[in-house]
Amino acid sequence: MGNVGSGAYRILRDNADIITHREGVKYTVTGALVRDKSKSRGDIPNELLTTDPNDILNDPEVDIVAEFLGGVEPARTYILQALNNGKTVVTANKVVLANCWPELEECARANGVGIYCEASVAGGIPIIRTLYTAMQANRITKVMGIINGTTNYILSAMSQQGKSYSEVLSEAQSIGLAEPDPTLDVEGLDAAYKLSLLSSIAFHGKVPMKYVYHEGITKVSKQDIAVGKEMGLTLKLLAIGKKENDRIEARVHPTFIPNSHPLAAINGATNAVYLDCDALGELVLSGQGAGSLPTGSAVVSDIVYASKQSTPTYNTFKNDDNVSENCFNFNWESEYFISIMAPDRPGVMAAVAGVFAANNISIASMVQKRSGEPGVPVIFLTHICHELDMKRAIEQIGSLEGLSVSSCIRVEALSK
Amino acid sequence: MGNVGSGAYRILRDNADIITHREGVKYTVTGALVRDKSKSRGDIPNELLTTDPNDILNDPEVDIVAEFLGGVEPARTYILQALNNGKTVVTANKVVLANCWPELEECARANGVGIYCEASVAGGIPIIRTLYTAMQANRITKVMGIINGTTNYILSAMSQQGKSYSEVLSEAQSIGLAEPDPTLDVEGLDAAYKLSLLSSIAFHGKVPMKYVYHEGITKVSKQDIAVGKEMGLTLKLLAIGKKENDRIEARVHPTFIPNSHPLAAINGATNAVYLDCDALGELVLSGQGAGSLPTGSAVVSDIVYASKQSTPTYNTFKNDDNVSENCFNFNWESEYFISIMAPDRPGVMAAVAGVFAANNISIASMVQKRSGEPGVPVIFLTHICHELDMKRAIEQIGSLEGLSVSSCIRVEALSK
Repeated sequence: MGNVGSGAYRILRDNADIITHREGVKYTVTGALVRDKSKSRGDIPNELLTTDPNDILNDPEVDIVAEFLGGVEPARTYILQALNNGKTVVTANKVVLANCWPELEECARANGVGIYCEASVAGGIPIIRTLYTAMQANRITKVMGIINGTTNYILSAMSQQGKSYSEVLSEAQSIGLAEPDPTLDVEGLDAAYKLSLLSSIAFHGKVPMKYVYHEGITKVSKQDIAVGKEMGLTLKLLAIGKKENDRIEARVHPTFIPNSHPLAAINGATNAVYLDCDALGELVLSGQGAGSLPTGSAVVSDIVYASKQSTPTYNTFKNDDNVSENCFNFNWESEYFISIMAPDRPGVMAAVAGVFAANNISIASMVQKRSGEPGVPVIFLTHICHELDMKRAIEQIGSLEGLSVSSCIRVEALSK
Repeated sequence: MGNVGSGAYRILRDNADIITHREGVKYTVTGALVRDKSKSRGDIPNELLTTDPNDILNDPEVDIVAEFLGGVEPARTYILQALNNGKTVVTANKVVLANCWPELEECARANGVGIYCEASVAGGIPIIRTLYTAMQANRITKVMGIINGTTNYILSAMSQQGKSYSEVLSEAQSIGLAEPDPTLDVEGLDAAYKLSLLSSIAFHGKVPMKYVYHEGITKVSKQDIAVGKEMGLTLKLLAIGKKENDRIEARVHPTFIPNSHPLAAINGATNAVYLDCDALGELVLSGQGAGSLPTGSAVVSDIVYASKQSTPTYNTFKNDDNVSENCFNFNWESEYFISIMAPDRPGVMAAVAGVFAANNISIASMVQKRSGEPGVPVIFLTHICHELDMKRAIEQIGSLEGLSVSSCIRVEALSK
């Protein structure tokens, strides 16, 4: 009965008439697990509440258990208990799924019950149902998402108001849009959990967390955003999954995209997921990625959908194959935005250009605003090159006397 | 084996491996109805083709018939024959659905088979599957769509290049983006058919074509678009469905929306559908609304989805109630952009303002660019008022000496 649970409960109560009338599904909410029964919960009847999970998990009358605990334990234990007791599980918990899904899926399968997880990625946006029920004809080559509202709010405000990261973070914390400890969001970990699920479903192969690269927004400067803007680029924390030549890459990092990209206009706490597929082409879904009622909508949709499946099915991830490290590509291709602090002396640019060339990196454009003034960076935009080449180049540039690479931001071009 | 049919065939052929592997669905394309067997169709084997519909409709081996004929007849007769022969029908044909669906649905129900129609609205965008399988928790209050690619292409080009309607239409025709006879598209009829289906599904009540208002883009001037732009407004041909107080309004017309609206950035031939719902809030889906492979993707998705339903179901429209004219609202509320040609003489503006006031129309703002110069209109933006009041006001203004209303464009504000 936290944020998502109470939203789901209110929808189940307030929209019971339409759900039963349209879908033919009648249901009763029999109980809700809480930590503290004495806490006042407004319009939620006290007699539903229990502090004993067994009241729910062992109740033979219960068909479906919805889980919104977050984190691995005790969620994992409760989900397994529910599945073993023959109950279908609906969950909004990305962390337990990303960490434990082979075990959960196996348990669901063994018990002939389902696991549904629409609410675990992008809140109310029905991206998981879309992937399962509308993309059957397609090989999906790319999935890109703005799937963390906090960081999108921060980057949008930095861009629109020209403020620094720490300034906007404080504001976001004061209005409740960022947690007191924002680490999970701003370091890209929340998005990485979601990308693990999203790319597993999109590419029909398990993408474990350990193969998802993540890099947060804490080092993004307002100068980078401003210079990018002048170049027609918008900065987003993107979760990017690609499948090329049977190899998957999955990565979360600050990314410049052209202003004309459909994700560039997604501002504030809004979420969006972009798919690129062989038959359908591009598809974008955008909407509320968090919040009590939007996420509750996804939970209730799963409950209704699950209850209408005539044969009980597990429904987590369809897997083509066993997955090993070889299935993943960590040396991905990208364009790059590189900001370098360089002293104004003869031969410096030649040295930098030489390092790029030696690492197979070709420069697309260079901007140096006020030559010679200390503390003003030189910006390079590269053509498509390889991540590991770029890492090596950055190391080598950093070892040149007086030079340092102040920013390295990947650019997702429309053409890629 | 036209545009959509050949796209669906190519996907069924080229992606058979993934469809069978992932979905467990094996299928054989047994035949395809064509007008002319001798016409060369590239990679499509001639032995599939037949000119006799009975070869397909009466073949006892056939489980699913997909229909892409367009229009009412012979599509209606063939669909009924297929349904009566126990075959599920997948159709991309908005016209036969909008005109005949009660009959088709009854026939499907009587025969215990299905009708699926994802491809009939917005091409590849899975809006129908989303409405059926992801919105169960929601009362949808508003559905708005850019669901005609031709008109969106024309309006986008007019706006971006400052060209006139007829200029852009000619260009669109020359590159095949507009038909030689563009009437169905530019008069809003194509979008009206789609809105009939979309609002029927969204509002769980039949919305017959005769209750869908439609008005095209042929009278839109580049001046209107330019003035709107200065006011922060973008012009789109919107298909709008709303349900308020159990009454439905369904209308297609040129509409100004704020530049910040999620539909304002949908340019060119791209389609998009926006939903507003009580639990989920706003949701936008955008993608390719036409084309051989995108529409084929929706057809194949329906074929796979249909073949996985363990109990045969019809699946056209879930209807709450019988629908009569009383269920519809033709006197809808909107804001308006009104352009008036007025002579520069004392008392004219007072007379216009008087007409508005007498019809309960309140002015939000007025722009008069170069007062007194003949041929320069005065632009009014109104607050929310009623359609029938506005119609009456326009008639009355037109009857004032020397005055004429050159444009009346509805404005869909973010707040509505």
